[in-house]
Amino acid sequence: MMTLGDAPVRVALLGCGVVGSQVARILLAQADDLRARVGRPLELAGIGVRREVERPGIDASLFTQDLAALVERDDVDLVIELIGGISPARELVLAAIGAGKSVVSANKALLAQHGAEIFEAAAAADVDVYYEAAVAGAIPIIRPLRESLVGDEVTAVKGIVNGTTNYILDQMHTQGVTFADALADAQRLGYAEADPTADVEGHDAAAKAAILASLAFHTRVTLSDVACEGISSVTAEDVQAAESMRCVIKLLAQCSVSPDGTVAVGVHPTMVPVEHPLAGIRGAYNAVFIESVNAGRLMFMGPGAGGSPTASAVLGDVVTAARNRVRGVPGHGESAYSRPGITDPATVVSAYYLALTVRDEPGVLSRVADAMARRGVSIAAVRQEQTTGEDASARLGITTHRAPDGSVRAVVDELREGGDVLGDVRVLRVEGA
Amino acid sequence: MMTLGDAPVRVALLGCGVVGSQVARILLAQADDLRARVGRPLELAGIGVRREVERPGIDASLFTQDLAALVERDDVDLVIELIGGISPARELVLAAIGAGKSVVSANKALLAQHGAEIFEAAAAADVDVYYEAAVAGAIPIIRPLRESLVGDEVTAVKGIVNGTTNYILDQMHTQGVTFADALADAQRLGYAEADPTADVEGHDAAAKAAILASLAFHTRVTLSDVACEGISSVTAEDVQAAESMRCVIKLLAQCSVSPDGTVAVGVHPTMVPVEHPLAGIRGAYNAVFIESVNAGRLMFMGPGAGGSPTASAVLGDVVTAARNRVRGVPGHGESAYSRPGITDPATVVSAYYLALTVRDEPGVLSRVADAMARRGVSIAAVRQEQTTGEDASARLGITTHRAPDGSVRAVVDELREGGDVLGDVRVLRVEGA
Repeated sequence: MMTLGDAPVRVALLGCGVVGSQVARILLAQADDLRARVGRPLELAGIGVRREVERPGIDASLFTQDLAALVERDDVDLVIELIGGISPARELVLAAIGAGKSVVSANKALLAQHGAEIFEAAAAADVDVYYEAAVAGAIPIIRPLRESLVGDEVTAVKGIVNGTTNYILDQMHTQGVTFADALADAQRLGYAEADPTADVEGHDAAAKAAILASLAFHTRVTLSDVACEGISSVTAEDVQAAESMRCVIKLLAQCSVSPDGTVAVGVHPTMVPVEHPLAGIRGAYNAVFIESVNAGRLMFMGPGAGGSPTASAVLGDVVTAARNRVRGVPGHGESAYSRPGITDPATVVSAYYLALTVRDEPGVLSRVADAMARRGVSIAAVRQEQTTGEDASARLGITTHRAPDGSVRAVVDELREGGDVLGDVRVLRVEGA
Repeated sequence: MMTLGDAPVRVALLGCGVVGSQVARILLAQADDLRARVGRPLELAGIGVRREVERPGIDASLFTQDLAALVERDDVDLVIELIGGISPARELVLAAIGAGKSVVSANKALLAQHGAEIFEAAAAADVDVYYEAAVAGAIPIIRPLRESLVGDEVTAVKGIVNGTTNYILDQMHTQGVTFADALADAQRLGYAEADPTADVEGHDAAAKAAILASLAFHTRVTLSDVACEGISSVTAEDVQAAESMRCVIKLLAQCSVSPDGTVAVGVHPTMVPVEHPLAGIRGAYNAVFIESVNAGRLMFMGPGAGGSPTASAVLGDVVTAARNRVRGVPGHGESAYSRPGITDPATVVSAYYLALTVRDEPGVLSRVADAMARRGVSIAAVRQEQTTGEDASARLGITTHRAPDGSVRAVVDELREGGDVLGDVRVLRVEGA
């Protein structure tokens, strides 16, 4: 990394949407404070956008549509990547690194899929890549995992890392609305996109889970390693069942170390006991819960999205990268030193809740219980309700003790194929208190 | 800072009590993991103790009672200071810095009183001084404030940073016991010292408040700047009054920026609404709540004390300082660049709760209300209860709107001096929801 002499640190911004325009405004409006913290002025050298835009308060001459030229400009020291997606973000970030610029990115998809390539390029070029804003918005979680807990052994990370789905599930619990109505409400309020797939199917949370697991366990987990289940199939009945069990349903990113040393990473709608700190995270807030051998149980909470909170995280990284640039020495790189492999998802252990409607006939419960016993899935509690319609059926809610996912899936497949079960079998994980 | 070549990073430990012996054990037991994270072995070079000790699993030859010689030994790169108190900790830390060693300390009193001297010495000697363990035990809070939020403008920090007092207050609320009984219970469980003064009178929390305010506001706040009130005068009646207002009493370290740009720092028993995230922090847990312009509201929670959690924070700093040492470049120093001064405590604004017993005569409430109105203290709510004894008296609970501390104190002084009030006037702050 080159030192700067007495020159200002010059910043190129890629993307000027909700977060980008807020970053640009803060760089301009808080210039004096930022200069005091960096020890040098932070100058906005240019803003790369894909289409012509106007932003009140931002000089029009800063904008350019030639992003490739901007990231390689000789007078740029640091590139902030806020365009999202894989291409051209990946090419631009790699070009910036190759040209000796440090990079600050909020792009969880890029880091979850191409993190190894990017961090290796950064190490070779002796520059920083920081990405606090990629996970849980304004909540400082990357730096605590990377540095504060680096002398400890993290055993599990559990996070509510997608505000859209947390808002929807919260509305289903507190307002008694269906998934579809809660989603429409979230879209109306701007919490959900017109195409909500990435949020509601858990893909966004899965990318963040990959990043968290990589840092927590000093390994490299990519998006394709993450078992991913969304919330679009969560029903009002699931919500009621959770409440009767004194739980709330949360979409949890779950990362843990398995007994064989491999790493299990998944995103699943999960029943969380109301006493658990994660149960109290409401609306569009995010939270990350960490268990480690020495520190014990820690939790970090805050706004998970939005222009200003995300800009706060971006600027924290920008100041740190700029301070490194002023000294001519990058920060510590990633500590991915072990590759213990990914746990076979079928062997990941959890407690489960199964909901099924069965023919109301003698012997049915015994056959269901037998199917579970044969697979080694032990029953913790059964709740049975007669249905009130004309058909003779009963609704069963079964909570299991901790069992491997594969065994529970096999039980569910057997029940679906047998003649006792009417309709589908619902399966949800249950978090310990 | 000198580079090390291929040599291991050698660590001297000062103090081998609950935290120190845990740090020593982790350095020995987790040597392989720590080496992988540092990139070099971390070797325990010696342990300075004031009296001869034996610790199972720790080689007796490591112990020395000559701490001054240990911190200056040529083969020591890094000194961990866990002896606490001001002297000889201050002299040993300054000697270590002067000899070119980096320092990791958990000593809040030392940093709150002599931080400026120590950080200046460290900057001059080009070494690191890290102290994550000095505030809120295992909770990563120093590094997030110092780095993650450095591009934002923190406006307030509110923390439950003393587990002993939180445990006592929690017991008073949940078990209905008196302060004295809760303290005795805490002492029996090892949560409180035989001499509990530093905890229950708020001095420990005040030192942490000074450290948090210095970091959050990029200034230098010392212990003597902190307005400090403990919990030994909190009564069962205060607890009942809080509950009737749907609040819990917490000892809060409160740091904020006043309208004139000065910094207000205090420790006060405070009524916190049950909906506030800090209200749910139970037992000996700690939590720090941060408000900033861009990030919004963040909260960090976790175990606030104990050997293993504190050791986790110490080792996170040790690994980071060791990685810096391997590269030969210290981390970024403190960013104390402004000295806006300390807010006159009389002008610090808060809502208050006043509890007083008055003669049950016509005109008394009017005179109380008049005393408040003349000082500009506006009443939000009044609760009046007849006392059941023989004397004609009434118990008043008055909640005020936000008013300067000095005005409220003047009201209280006037009420105490007048003839209407029987016994003392209780004053507690009330936190906003």
